[in-house]
Amino acid sequence: MLPMPLLTMKFGGTSVADLERMRTVASKIKYEVERGYNVIAVVSAMAGATNKLIGLVESTSNLFDAREYDAVVSTGESQSSGLLALTLQDIGIPARSWQGWQVPVITTSAHGTARITQIETENLNAKFAEGMRVAVVAGFQGTSPEGRMTTLGRGGSDTSAVAFATAFKSERCDIYTDVDGVYTADPRIVPNARKLQKISYEEMLELASLGAKVLQTRSVELAMRNNVRLCVRSSFNDEPGTLVCDEEEIMEKNTVSGIAQTVDEAKISILSVEDRPGIAEAVFGPLAAAGVNVDMIIQTISERELTDITFTCPVNQVELAESALKSARDRGSVGFRGLVADTDVCKVSVVGIGMRSHTGVASKMFGALAKQKINIKAISTSEIKISVLVDQIYRDLAVKALHDEFGLNYSN
Amino acid sequence: MLPMPLLTMKFGGTSVADLERMRTVASKIKYEVERGYNVIAVVSAMAGATNKLIGLVESTSNLFDAREYDAVVSTGESQSSGLLALTLQDIGIPARSWQGWQVPVITTSAHGTARITQIETENLNAKFAEGMRVAVVAGFQGTSPEGRMTTLGRGGSDTSAVAFATAFKSERCDIYTDVDGVYTADPRIVPNARKLQKISYEEMLELASLGAKVLQTRSVELAMRNNVRLCVRSSFNDEPGTLVCDEEEIMEKNTVSGIAQTVDEAKISILSVEDRPGIAEAVFGPLAAAGVNVDMIIQTISERELTDITFTCPVNQVELAESALKSARDRGSVGFRGLVADTDVCKVSVVGIGMRSHTGVASKMFGALAKQKINIKAISTSEIKISVLVDQIYRDLAVKALHDEFGLNYSN
Repeated sequence: MLPMPLLTMKFGGTSVADLERMRTVASKIKYEVERGYNVIAVVSAMAGATNKLIGLVESTSNLFDAREYDAVVSTGESQSSGLLALTLQDIGIPARSWQGWQVPVITTSAHGTARITQIETENLNAKFAEGMRVAVVAGFQGTSPEGRMTTLGRGGSDTSAVAFATAFKSERCDIYTDVDGVYTADPRIVPNARKLQKISYEEMLELASLGAKVLQTRSVELAMRNNVRLCVRSSFNDEPGTLVCDEEEIMEKNTVSGIAQTVDEAKISILSVEDRPGIAEAVFGPLAAAGVNVDMIIQTISERELTDITFTCPVNQVELAESALKSARDRGSVGFRGLVADTDVCKVSVVGIGMRSHTGVASKMFGALAKQKINIKAISTSEIKISVLVDQIYRDLAVKALHDEFGLNYSN
Repeated sequence: MLPMPLLTMKFGGTSVADLERMRTVASKIKYEVERGYNVIAVVSAMAGATNKLIGLVESTSNLFDAREYDAVVSTGESQSSGLLALTLQDIGIPARSWQGWQVPVITTSAHGTARITQIETENLNAKFAEGMRVAVVAGFQGTSPEGRMTTLGRGGSDTSAVAFATAFKSERCDIYTDVDGVYTADPRIVPNARKLQKISYEEMLELASLGAKVLQTRSVELAMRNNVRLCVRSSFNDEPGTLVCDEEEIMEKNTVSGIAQTVDEAKISILSVEDRPGIAEAVFGPLAAAGVNVDMIIQTISERELTDITFTCPVNQVELAESALKSARDRGSVGFRGLVADTDVCKVSVVGIGMRSHTGVASKMFGALAKQKINIKAISTSEIKISVLVDQIYRDLAVKALHDEFGLNYSN
């Protein structure tokens, strides 16, 4: 007998927020089971549950043991997986729940941010062979080599899903969420944004790390590395969604596939730095050591041995960055006159694999922004994206102008 | 190096209801640690958590899979054990949480009502040897031979605690609860009830099964069988509590140690049953087969081949009992004219190991009730207890009269 084809389906917290929604999820799973698939359903905790548990843990102590954090916080997924298994059984689907340690999902011991090192397939496959049609897996969870519960960090259920799809050679990994696919821009900013039928891993990765919240960056990386086809779809309708796949699968390659924006950026200028060889290391070495995530860097042309260096980092790391630089100055490893932080900035990016073969995207982008009189404060590029830093008040205007400029509107 | 003396401490749901109460619990544990004990702290779920989880499970399906019920419901103890471990760490006590599968606590596969078959001591002892001072164990939980989560049924954390105390040869098992010991009667009924310093296992077992809610019957049985000294104490004060121990440890044996009462009793009379040999089996066989928990039985003297048989059972089994008897009549295995159920009754009992050597307790009891003009509707006895069934409206009056009659008041 040939083994049944296998599908991995992942449901986020809003998709399993209550028992009513779980019934909707169960009917989606039933549809696939009736089409002949065995299903691995990976679930997040019911919306709100994880935050509530984190709140309890944080109230016990300022410096808490991450192993106990994991023991407590992982219970949200244990609950939702059991409840979804029950809901499936109630409509006649042979299902059972699996906690991380039961599969087992082996992870590193980096509690709170563990990485999956291995997923054993033996136990699940044995149960599939006995007639189980749906394995409801608690996402986000694993077990360390020491036998403690671990969690994968925020959004870890997406990563769990891709890891299961990889380990079980799943035909596809469907990520059900509260949006029905990947759009050319955030529809709240651009009402006529278009849903993409397909998008390449590389583009999705850029979009995810540039602020599109639809998929967790790590899960896209993992899918790309293991060539797992991801489908982003809605738990609340039956629309086809967006397929994230190898660019070979995409016939029509867009020059620009989408526009993304982030708001949690800050720009820090270091004023009157002595301009000498090795100064970049003297500035960015201490920042890296302090764990500051530096993104864009601009160095203005120097006058009389003094220069200004500007960089961006996440807005919640501004204090960290300032104290790292001041310590470096106190130690005498770098001299500067002052620091200025600007948190009213945002990053707007255009992304598309077609950029590799099309030139002129940058000048088209800068032209469109200039036409709106939007000042560009910093620029960074990669092979398939161009990002600019602009004042936050121009965010929506910039996104709309670029969406229009690159012909991404629904009517096109 | 001699191993440290070990104490098992159990905290119920009201004792760990919130983080504030957990801090009180932690300070009680710290006190014992500072006295030189290693501690196994067994915890229930935070008050209300288990009922909420049961509600969710019951909403998924009418006939739910007990294995998934256990997977979901057991998470309450996983949470509270992690949170208490964190609270202990915060006051400098080396503590960690242990879920059932981590110890492991091996149970039968009777999900929802599992029994502990083995507690492995190796893992905990290894951690104690490494410097762990408190193992915070999720009570109520275990793992089946198949590797599924199991739960021990209502009040199972008491049983967990006694099982741990047995496996680890704990010096004592302290059961912290919301009352500060075992009283001669329920203080809400008898305000001058007296707290007992010591009580024998046998008496505690009778009191527990006769309605005293302070300890779960199963845990007392287990403690008696393994000679684990139990101490019932309050989480909310530092009073010494009541020691439940072997009667050898009790110098002064009371004739009557306490008065207990239940309210969930029902009396069913089967009218005009044919009086012939084998009729008891014909009546009580079908009741036993249906799972009805028959307690007291009275058969009135028969007239002309017909008799009335009266028995008591839990009030929630009345319908079950009636349908079992009617089916038996329909099958022709027993004949009777009708059934009358009375749910306005209660059982009042006097318990004391001293009854073994003292006579006259029954007549003293009946005399005290007669003096109050309370009609006795049924009687049952064991070696160390006498129970009577009376109308529910006389419950408090009966308890007070007996408490007084046997000299149990505080002033004595």
